[in-house]
Amino acid sequence: MNRITNLFGIRWPIIQAGIVWAAGWELCAAVSKAGALGLIGAGSMKPDLLQLHIRKAKAALQNQEPFGVNIPLQRGDADELVQVCLDENVKILFTSAGNPGRFTPTFKEREVTVVHVVPSVVLAQEAEARGVDAVVCEGTEAGGHDGVDEIPTFVLVPQVVDAVKIPVIAAGGIVNGRGIAAAMALGAEGAQIGTRFAATVESSAHPRYKQAVLKATDTSTVFALRKIGPVRMLRNPFAERCADAESRGASEEEQQALRGEHRERIGIFEGDWEEGMFEAGMGAGLIHDLPNAADLVARLVREYDDAMARLNAAVNTLK
Amino acid sequence: MNRITNLFGIRWPIIQAGIVWAAGWELCAAVSKAGALGLIGAGSMKPDLLQLHIRKAKAALQNQEPFGVNIPLQRGDADELVQVCLDENVKILFTSAGNPGRFTPTFKEREVTVVHVVPSVVLAQEAEARGVDAVVCEGTEAGGHDGVDEIPTFVLVPQVVDAVKIPVIAAGGIVNGRGIAAAMALGAEGAQIGTRFAATVESSAHPRYKQAVLKATDTSTVFALRKIGPVRMLRNPFAERCADAESRGASEEEQQALRGEHRERIGIFEGDWEEGMFEAGMGAGLIHDLPNAADLVARLVREYDDAMARLNAAVNTLK
Repeated sequence: MNRITNLFGIRWPIIQAGIVWAAGWELCAAVSKAGALGLIGAGSMKPDLLQLHIRKAKAALQNQEPFGVNIPLQRGDADELVQVCLDENVKILFTSAGNPGRFTPTFKEREVTVVHVVPSVVLAQEAEARGVDAVVCEGTEAGGHDGVDEIPTFVLVPQVVDAVKIPVIAAGGIVNGRGIAAAMALGAEGAQIGTRFAATVESSAHPRYKQAVLKATDTSTVFALRKIGPVRMLRNPFAERCADAESRGASEEEQQALRGEHRERIGIFEGDWEEGMFEAGMGAGLIHDLPNAADLVARLVREYDDAMARLNAAVNTLK
Repeated sequence: MNRITNLFGIRWPIIQAGIVWAAGWELCAAVSKAGALGLIGAGSMKPDLLQLHIRKAKAALQNQEPFGVNIPLQRGDADELVQVCLDENVKILFTSAGNPGRFTPTFKEREVTVVHVVPSVVLAQEAEARGVDAVVCEGTEAGGHDGVDEIPTFVLVPQVVDAVKIPVIAAGGIVNGRGIAAAMALGAEGAQIGTRFAATVESSAHPRYKQAVLKATDTSTVFALRKIGPVRMLRNPFAERCADAESRGASEEEQQALRGEHRERIGIFEGDWEEGMFEAGMGAGLIHDLPNAADLVARLVREYDDAMARLNAAVNTLK
């Protein structure tokens, strides 16, 4: 047990990210049942739909295993989403974007564990100062909305670990047990994993999204729309248009018009390869199958043990 | 011993990168004497100066410890640089940019070990097919000239490890023992370290360069000049101009004019903060002192052992 498994009351220090349009109650419950921490991704849900997903997750887990909800604080209705979670007695919340201190007093009062997602050292320190229980430090490898400073996992994790006292969960580019071991070597006490869980049986992402992840290589993602909030996504016709706009220095207004609305839904949920935004992390090139979530969790643990055994064998032969 | 320590005949699987203007014979010899592999960076040297540095390194090492030379193959006089190395009986060459197979037959004939630096899976496979003995896979965190695909270390290393049979050396963002352990967890068998060695006593970088590295944080580097060959450098007035040009989509011609000539020398060697290019990696934020190279190598090994002990303690308490 480390501080992260203790904080959540879970067996393995693995968190399934609350990916928009992919992380509903089915994925969340399957992951939590397997001994990791499942999160419902509220980013794609209205308050009433979130309530439904929370209730279904609770029913599936029969109040045995802990689970959580991810809430992007920049949402106009963030207050309502938070209220739903409080009303439903959700005990673990992951917040991203926005001010990490906005709801902390309420969360403390209601004994809710709160974790904030940060992309840089300064924002990690700010989150700690505002009273969150842990931070996810998310490298620029991660799919979806990323930090403007474009700091990769390998250099972000150790700098955040050195800068804060609260436990650090690594995210961005982690898809297998080698990655979890590497994150731990860098000083993290847990790993949040997104795209790998979006490509599972229980993920609500469209089959075309899952197939696109399987086909991805090391060069299959595009990082663009920097002027309006950068996004990492699979290289499809829409992403190519974004990359072109980036290259010719398109203005904020132009990028906003290009992006339009509902791109994540059109991509991840509806599977429109031409027009959708297929948010995915750079670890996609390491994903080659579509297991169910329980098998995936067991495999991650096994791969972690293998990586540690390999490391230890190398050390022993050095001495 | 692993395949990398065997390949070079070194004690620790640590390679000091051949950083332009920082890695002369003094740094190279000090690192090799300490049991890692020192490299002379030929990128900033004319053939006659390279010859002088090789001779001084040989004299300093008295033919005891192995050392190598890094040659950027895009140099117009790459043939001459290679010839100097062959004439001086240098037994380890690291090549970067250009065609990795250009000199391989000659190197094989002369029993020279050759390692090529690659930024992507396809280029790693190509280097293997052309007969190199190992690859350095260099993540986009690395200082100086980087690959156009901007693939970070955390996701590049495991994909290259899965794609080739030859041993893989990780580079980009590695500055301490935690980083070496993480690189090994990802499947690498060695770590190439640049900026950390550029900030040592024996480095020939300007004191102002070394001080700038010490002051760096997680957000202190700029990645720019994408249209003419991307470079990662510390954020100084010159780098800010490059970032602005990038943001407004400046053309290839404009970027070329902005870059001009001799920027690395003006920055790294002459220490001109306004006009120079201070090439440095994203690990700079983790560098807080200017040790000598031998102490640094010993510290890296100690930190690696500490990271492994911490990892193993965590695993044991999980069981």
